Amino acid sequence: MEKLSSQDAGFLKIETPECPFHVAGLVILELPPGAPDSYLNHLADKCRRLNKLFPVFNKKLENPDNLLKAAWITADDYNPDSHVLHYALPEGGRMADLMHLVARAHERHLDRSRPLWELHLIEGLPRNRFALYCKTHHALVDGIGAMQMIQSLFSTDPEQIIDLRKSHRDFSKHRHHPSLVAQLGSYAKGIVTQSRALPQLSRLLAHMATDAIKGNPDAMRLPFTAPRTVFNTELDSRRTLAVCDLPLNTVRRIAHRNGGTINDVLLAICGGALRRYLQAHSTLPGDSLIGGMPVSLKTAPDEPGNRLSYILSPFFTDEANDLRRLQRVIKTTRAAKSEMAKVSTAAAEDFYALLMVPAVLLTLTGNAGRIPAVINAIFSNVPGASSALYLEGAKMETFYPLSIITHGMGLNITVVSHQSKLCFGIVGCPSTQPGIESLSGLIKTSYQALRKTT
Amino acid sequence: MEKLSSQDAGFLKIETPECPFHVAGLVILELPPGAPDSYLNHLADKCRRLNKLFPVFNKKLENPDNLLKAAWITADDYNPDSHVLHYALPEGGRMADLMHLVARAHERHLDRSRPLWELHLIEGLPRNRFALYCKTHHALVDGIGAMQMIQSLFSTDPEQIIDLRKSHRDFSKHRHHPSLVAQLGSYAKGIVTQSRALPQLSRLLAHMATDAIKGNPDAMRLPFTAPRTVFNTELDSRRTLAVCDLPLNTVRRIAHRNGGTINDVLLAICGGALRRYLQAHSTLPGDSLIGGMPVSLKTAPDEPGNRLSYILSPFFTDEANDLRRLQRVIKTTRAAKSEMAKVSTAAAEDFYALLMVPAVLLTLTGNAGRIPAVINAIFSNVPGASSALYLEGAKMETFYPLSIITHGMGLNITVVSHQSKLCFGIVGCPSTQPGIESLSGLIKTSYQALRKTT
Repeated sequence: MEKLSSQDAGFLKIETPECPFHVAGLVILELPPGAPDSYLNHLADKCRRLNKLFPVFNKKLENPDNLLKAAWITADDYNPDSHVLHYALPEGGRMADLMHLVARAHERHLDRSRPLWELHLIEGLPRNRFALYCKTHHALVDGIGAMQMIQSLFSTDPEQIIDLRKSHRDFSKHRHHPSLVAQLGSYAKGIVTQSRALPQLSRLLAHMATDAIKGNPDAMRLPFTAPRTVFNTELDSRRTLAVCDLPLNTVRRIAHRNGGTINDVLLAICGGALRRYLQAHSTLPGDSLIGGMPVSLKTAPDEPGNRLSYILSPFFTDEANDLRRLQRVIKTTRAAKSEMAKVSTAAAEDFYALLMVPAVLLTLTGNAGRIPAVINAIFSNVPGASSALYLEGAKMETFYPLSIITHGMGLNITVVSHQSKLCFGIVGCPSTQPGIESLSGLIKTSYQALRKTT
Repeated sequence: MEKLSSQDAGFLKIETPECPFHVAGLVILELPPGAPDSYLNHLADKCRRLNKLFPVFNKKLENPDNLLKAAWITADDYNPDSHVLHYALPEGGRMADLMHLVARAHERHLDRSRPLWELHLIEGLPRNRFALYCKTHHALVDGIGAMQMIQSLFSTDPEQIIDLRKSHRDFSKHRHHPSLVAQLGSYAKGIVTQSRALPQLSRLLAHMATDAIKGNPDAMRLPFTAPRTVFNTELDSRRTLAVCDLPLNTVRRIAHRNGGTINDVLLAICGGALRRYLQAHSTLPGDSLIGGMPVSLKTAPDEPGNRLSYILSPFFTDEANDLRRLQRVIKTTRAAKSEMAKVSTAAAEDFYALLMVPAVLLTLTGNAGRIPAVINAIFSNVPGASSALYLEGAKMETFYPLSIITHGMGLNITVVSHQSKLCFGIVGCPSTQPGIESLSGLIKTSYQALRKTT
């Protein structure tokens, strides 16, 4: 028996019927040349035994109905059929059909009486491809951990097969990567009602005023100045998933030519896509949308470990010109990073917590109308694999991260690089964001516009 | 706005994470000869608009989180993608693969924020066949109603297409068919804790003693004399589904030769299958298992309306000889029907309610160890269509009803006739009933044994 950390208990506590707290990855693979007919059935059988490989896939909540007493125990009643589903797209099925089915899977909560993961093996994509969709609860493993777990099944050697006798290390938590969502779990421990939260809020704002922002509001965004958009409302349980890829080399070239980073270019491209989406729906606010974005705080390349933090950065959706938008992003993130480096650890921690207040309050009180927006969309960019990866000979074509959205932060764009591609995974809520699947096309439009001008 | 009946509110109230309260039908169809490639996509599109045809498919709960205030309202936000899933079996998929996928679908709760139905169109069965799995919440429509809704989409004319402009009558409730499950909903209104239930129990037993059983305990089973079996425990959320068919004509011939009804033969066959299953798992009790079974109380064939009731009938699992088992079933059900006809309406109603006490108590208090079993398995047999039926040219091959199981009544066998076939739909819980899918094979074994001896 292993007691749940208070943060993990927090993830379970703030989970609502509308906002499940699981992360997922969607991997598109090519069948190995000359694979036998039994290849996918064989692979599904191996997936059914992944609990042997990953210790976290074999533990479940002892007391799922009483989170105060919740603990992890070994699932002696592990049943593979509850975790692995093997099916196919309809005849002639395409990527859009896959996204529909995966969205239904992503909407559904994991069953708390079982180990908190599920894997779908979906065959029948055009050009001899198939998909793996793997979701895990954030109380079990965080987004980065989930990605590393999936990748650990892969090998650079096409001949390598999965060895189920070799138990893998525990991927469960990456304490050095304080993602927005992780903070949400931590914060949910304390805040239960709006009234209890308000004094804490005041204390945080006082910290911010005296230490963090240091009279430089243009560089480091003051919280609660994000405009209200369709992304910052209460959600229902529906989800839309969208994916797209951009060529890494071209994005890198655009970054270098403009003196920025790949992250800057991605942020500017997303800003362009968000502007186009909001314009098409006549809901573009005058002020720019704000993204919550992880940045490295390393001051030297050889500094050990990760010092990551989150900064708020405008998407510059108020800027019509794609090149000028990129230039403004570069200028702002450079300033914000230098500001963040000067902030004390205590203030930085308070700052993360502050970001979470609206989402936690919305989740716990369902009071969207009165709580201001801090972040319009969660944006993050995680380095993936640079070399070709194979799963029992099947080559990974793309890897799309599908992360969490919550009340008040209803759009998540996560980018993972894989070989020469930047793979975008977008999660939104179609009930409040009609046609949000168009964002993948608009990201390409925005990229093309930028490519032509630089 | 339409207030929920207290019975329907009861169905929602006693629903637990382990025991969803939906009924379903699984239909196997043959693709029409020469169907175009777009046939199934076109059919899926029509299914997405079934809310136009069936008013109950377009209503949702106004206040799903507060059942005291719950009411039905029109779903202005009806979203077809949340209700219709279209996918396929893996390459080379067979009936067993279909049953696995459908079991996962049957395990999942319907989303209470939407209209309470879901339809899966699953292609890729051998011999150009596909499947429709349609589930509806019992608060929306009962088992018979759900079956009639599905059948109303079909036509005896292969050329007929579904006309979405023609709204169908309301199938929601069939008050003349007081199924065990319906009684469960009614009864859940009143009983909330075991202590409150006990006085009612005493009153019911007093009624029973003075009126219903009339000193004839051999004919009409006294409740609480069913043996404890693996079917009468608390359930978890897993489900196993199994199906099989028997030839109607042969079953009818066996019935006639022995002076019984088709229902008698089916009950005896199920008894033989249950005996074989329990023997194989070394858990056959000395006393016979008891089935809860609907019977018609009509005294004359031309009596208007339905007077249906439930009787408890032994499966005679204590009888090793298949023919003698049938003979004992025939003798007992004949006696029970004549007893039931003499029972007052008040006592009959109390009797149904009494049957439900253990299941309701188990559901509400989770106290399986202390509550005796009344019924070991729910068995019912519903007449279906005698002529060929087509859905936009696709011929219905079989129709399998998949009904509800609850704590304490963890096995449901429902039979529907379709043309020359008797189609068995079996729902069990594999965690407490290992290998329960073998029941479909054992039903065939039991049938063959009976066929050879008569």
